[in-house]
Amino acid sequence: MPPTILTDDDLDARLSPADAVAAMERALEAYAAGDLQAPPREYVSVGDGDLVFTVGGDSEGFGFRAYQTVGAVAGSQVTCVFAPDGALRGLAVGDRAGILRTSGIGGVAVDHLARDDATTLGLLGSWRHARSQAEAVAAVRDLDRVQVFSPNPDHRTDCATDLDERLDCAVEARDDPEPVVREADVLVCATDATSPVFEADWLQPGTHVSSLGPKEVGVSELPADIASHVDLAVTDSLAQARATDEYVVDHGRLVELGDVVAGTQSGRESADHVTLFCSVGLAGTEVALVRAALD
Amino acid sequence: MPPTILTDDDLDARLSPADAVAAMERALEAYAAGDLQAPPREYVSVGDGDLVFTVGGDSEGFGFRAYQTVGAVAGSQVTCVFAPDGALRGLAVGDRAGILRTSGIGGVAVDHLARDDATTLGLLGSWRHARSQAEAVAAVRDLDRVQVFSPNPDHRTDCATDLDERLDCAVEARDDPEPVVREADVLVCATDATSPVFEADWLQPGTHVSSLGPKEVGVSELPADIASHVDLAVTDSLAQARATDEYVVDHGRLVELGDVVAGTQSGRESADHVTLFCSVGLAGTEVALVRAALD
Repeated sequence: MPPTILTDDDLDARLSPADAVAAMERALEAYAAGDLQAPPREYVSVGDGDLVFTVGGDSEGFGFRAYQTVGAVAGSQVTCVFAPDGALRGLAVGDRAGILRTSGIGGVAVDHLARDDATTLGLLGSWRHARSQAEAVAAVRDLDRVQVFSPNPDHRTDCATDLDERLDCAVEARDDPEPVVREADVLVCATDATSPVFEADWLQPGTHVSSLGPKEVGVSELPADIASHVDLAVTDSLAQARATDEYVVDHGRLVELGDVVAGTQSGRESADHVTLFCSVGLAGTEVALVRAALD
Repeated sequence: MPPTILTDDDLDARLSPADAVAAMERALEAYAAGDLQAPPREYVSVGDGDLVFTVGGDSEGFGFRAYQTVGAVAGSQVTCVFAPDGALRGLAVGDRAGILRTSGIGGVAVDHLARDDATTLGLLGSWRHARSQAEAVAAVRDLDRVQVFSPNPDHRTDCATDLDERLDCAVEARDDPEPVVREADVLVCATDATSPVFEADWLQPGTHVSSLGPKEVGVSELPADIASHVDLAVTDSLAQARATDEYVVDHGRLVELGDVVAGTQSGRESADHVTLFCSVGLAGTEVALVRAALD
């Protein structure tokens, strides 16, 4: 059987946000059980940048994602999925696999770390990752309100209009990040900002925060003092988080999301706690995501 | 523009054997001029084998081929081609890109090393590589006869029938390799044999030999004493040939095909000389081959 080729649209047609969350929950369980191999990324220099290969494998097969750092060109990623016998089952061409696995993992994090009665999502950031995260959160919590902030009025309005069509709840663009943070039960930071996009004091007890951007002190979208406001800090890959020396939260405090999913680490312990998910993109999960679309 | 996806059939529809030879001649010229980057292969372990990434780049762009060594499964290779700005131009899924670039390079070797008046091709081996090599030789020499030997009667008959349809000359299956070698102006060995498939004494003056199989002493399709029968030994990549310690020809005697193409090294110097091309599959050429199909 020839391999199946999936475009970004094909992935969305085959995987709902809830499907992506379920696939990433299974991948995180496999990782916690030691069944997800994810060796370090391989970088091969080409001209002004690198080709980067992220390999992953488990008992259901193996594969890789390849992307380039030469230029910021949309749609230039490829994820290939092989069966355990070496047959190429299929591949996804485009950026959606990487976004869907990130939002799928984000959905798992919210499901295990946010309060069960969380109804208000705050979104800092307005682009594809932010929108996909909102859909994943809506797949695991019964949202009644989403508030979006971006410093660019057009961006936040466009994002709110888009999410209003996709989500079954009220969506509003806000021109001030402070109420977005203060009123959030779940706060998703999905920006490319290298300086803090909110103040830690704005966080209310019981909030869950997910951060997608860089987590290095001094170049993070998170406040420098976030650690002192957080009761539980979780990441999808401790090994990958440790690759960043000066982390916004001490590495020693970080718990792995897979262990929370597996129940060997505690998740949220109090309705008042502030939880933080530091998303790093556990290697190997792109392959699991595309495989779920092929199954 | 979304990337173009090419199947094995698409490659054949877009590239004639002569086109493949021309594309590989350009790639070898670029290599000789120092414009083809081909860093060492990257191997990443997955279960019972590896994922292997071969990266190549030049002024027209970059890319990679990925294949797996877990199982011998047809069609499980992927070659991706990026533009210089990082855009994914397209990709080829299947085994044909690897075969076409190998036969394209083989055609360049024959064009520069075989006698101009070569008319008889001897083929030891009957599978896809052998057939594609025959088409490439026919693209650079005016053949009037092809003789095929394989120890398996069905295989050699099937190959001869197939080539008879594709080539504009007489094609015959032979049940004895000796006359195939003795009568050959160009002899192509394209077997997976790990012991010699002919005797060096059978080679007549003026013959050109191309070998695709392993070139390590003791596990080669070539006679152990081939070196003493050869006047000129050429390879497509000295660096890759050097990775094999006990080579059938001393590394010091090997000349690079790119330099012969560029004219900085001599090719055939006498109609009586025996020339040998040790094909190793210069890295980066798969990318150039698929790019030629995209152009």
